[in-house]
Amino acid sequence: MTEIRRGATVTRRSTGTPEGHGPIGTQRDNEPGELSGGRGRAQGQGPGAEGHEAAVLLRESRASVDPELRSAIASLPDSMRRIALYHFGWQHADGTPATGNAGKAIRPALVLTAATALGGPAARAAAGRAAAAVELVHNFTLLHDDVMDRDATRRHRPTAWTVFGDADAILAGDALQALALRLLAADPHPASAAAATRLADCVMELCEGQHADTAMEGRPPDQVTLDETLAMAEAKTGALLGCACALGALYAGAATEDVEALDAFGREAGLAFQLIDDVIGIWGDPRHTGKPAGADLAARKKSLPVVAALTSGTPAAAELAELYAAPYDKDKEDLERTALAVERAGGRDWAQAQAADRMARAMQELARAVPDPEAAGGLLALAEFVTRRST
Amino acid sequence: MTEIRRGATVTRRSTGTPEGHGPIGTQRDNEPGELSGGRGRAQGQGPGAEGHEAAVLLRESRASVDPELRSAIASLPDSMRRIALYHFGWQHADGTPATGNAGKAIRPALVLTAATALGGPAARAAAGRAAAAVELVHNFTLLHDDVMDRDATRRHRPTAWTVFGDADAILAGDALQALALRLLAADPHPASAAAATRLADCVMELCEGQHADTAMEGRPPDQVTLDETLAMAEAKTGALLGCACALGALYAGAATEDVEALDAFGREAGLAFQLIDDVIGIWGDPRHTGKPAGADLAARKKSLPVVAALTSGTPAAAELAELYAAPYDKDKEDLERTALAVERAGGRDWAQAQAADRMARAMQELARAVPDPEAAGGLLALAEFVTRRST
Repeated sequence: MTEIRRGATVTRRSTGTPEGHGPIGTQRDNEPGELSGGRGRAQGQGPGAEGHEAAVLLRESRASVDPELRSAIASLPDSMRRIALYHFGWQHADGTPATGNAGKAIRPALVLTAATALGGPAARAAAGRAAAAVELVHNFTLLHDDVMDRDATRRHRPTAWTVFGDADAILAGDALQALALRLLAADPHPASAAAATRLADCVMELCEGQHADTAMEGRPPDQVTLDETLAMAEAKTGALLGCACALGALYAGAATEDVEALDAFGREAGLAFQLIDDVIGIWGDPRHTGKPAGADLAARKKSLPVVAALTSGTPAAAELAELYAAPYDKDKEDLERTALAVERAGGRDWAQAQAADRMARAMQELARAVPDPEAAGGLLALAEFVTRRST
Repeated sequence: MTEIRRGATVTRRSTGTPEGHGPIGTQRDNEPGELSGGRGRAQGQGPGAEGHEAAVLLRESRASVDPELRSAIASLPDSMRRIALYHFGWQHADGTPATGNAGKAIRPALVLTAATALGGPAARAAAGRAAAAVELVHNFTLLHDDVMDRDATRRHRPTAWTVFGDADAILAGDALQALALRLLAADPHPASAAAATRLADCVMELCEGQHADTAMEGRPPDQVTLDETLAMAEAKTGALLGCACALGALYAGAATEDVEALDAFGREAGLAFQLIDDVIGIWGDPRHTGKPAGADLAARKKSLPVVAALTSGTPAAAELAELYAAPYDKDKEDLERTALAVERAGGRDWAQAQAADRMARAMQELARAVPDPEAAGGLLALAEFVTRRST
């Protein structure tokens, strides 16, 4: 299973200070494509053509989805609305308005861009509620994930449970899930029932992925397989990106096979993102990550390159397994040497090759559903942006 | 607002040992109508005609809804299915089959009985998924409620979070909410979208009710009003009972005003239940409750009779407020005297009169939607059963 290939060169665009993130939808601290906090982030994308196109798509979809989101959140009961507005960065804890950072909203952009690719501007206009629903589901999982993982910071602010308590953060997450599925249930569009069914299925997959992640982190390293680590990453990270693309296709009235191809496109791009993010979690970003290299190793995280290394059957795997058997002690362990063990066991090359392979598969799926390169350009740009690869 | 009326005599049927329960959907430890644990509970209902009819309706709806529920739960991802099967009492923690007690399923019975009342057997047959969806929502809230309230026992067994941990119990609740709304989204019945919209709205109201309950328990007694206590009880207890009836009406193709009347019927009956349950929480059941009288007073619970007493402006209210200002100390406080203060302040009479008033309103709403007494008989029997009143 451990496929060792020639390494694909992975570099990362310089985009300013990364922000600490721990979404249910991603294994690591960065939201796909969400690198810089606050306003002006689109300007930091660097000069690449895909980067520019992605920045425009993200800005435009943020402009479309925000009114939908705000209107939906305004319909929540008072107590739940207050927590949601805080979580989205639109209010301070005391209820005064904030010009916060609600994230890049990559998922709504995927919904709207997929709808455009397959159905043009009319489909994009029709898919606004679906885009908001996907973003609400994402944020419901963030609220619950932060409670479970005891994460204290999100988007540079204290997480909702630290401000409102565990119970209210759990309740607000529950309410956002209900709101998401309500948006689709009340949408008269002919695709809405299929979209709601698909989004609910995706929620169940996200739950399974989060469960698997928690369970795997609690197991000894030698009892974790690469297959299950990949399956977990797909459920946790790939599923909602795939679902976002599939919902856009459904709202464009696409044929079943195109809906499935776009789901697969999003899933593969999501896995590529996760693999690259895991590489950065060990070796750091060649430019700015804002995180010390080796952070995931110090936390003994069973990230994809680590599990690939541990299951490689190499002498370096045995060395790594011994290191991972005890908690990190900065006086006894040099993280650069630990990273070197992962590298010598083939973990880095495998992850980079896998990421390249996943992106290639994503492109194949995209070409299948959207053969016209011009129509496919937006989704391609978003996938490149999400995986932060300069090709 | 504090309406003091002549007390309605409230007695409770002898139904064997009550079971400890703490659903989000009810303020206190008993599920509406769920008094005895395990098999044979229908036989313990006593000889009243409504009791017998309710027992038959509950048994028949359990028989209809169980296959729907089991089939839905079977579709969950492995990890979530395991927790759900444990929670429903259908598996032990090790995954072996259990012949457990999944509760009385009063809510599915309301869905099916409402559908029958307004649309006959065909509507009842069509409403199976809606009945299962309501029961899944109820159980999602139980899973989360137990985590928030640190309740260790439900239906005579350790709660899911004590067995699987907080994270998995939260995730299983999330998955059950998704499953509930998925059942409706995938249901081709013409009422399914309206039903899903209504059920999602109800979830948001349940969240608000649970939030209000938690928030009120943390406030000083003199800062809690009777209006907000009633509103909380309606959101926490009444909303889902009302929604269950409304979904049955929707699946019967009922007119909007009849759907609303049945929602109001369920809400009022739910409030009547809560008032009576709160009375029992202070003075105990005239027959067996299995609970010491005064348990709610020892816990300083701001139940409806207590808040009515505290806000009555009587000398006994001042005495009660003084007692409630400090935690219960069994060496210093005689709970019978505390209960007497509530009674002298009018809390008991008010609660019993309110319960009678709510039941009268419920009957009015029922008569409006279902004028034929024979057709209305099933819902009437269930309401009487839920409120355990012998009239």
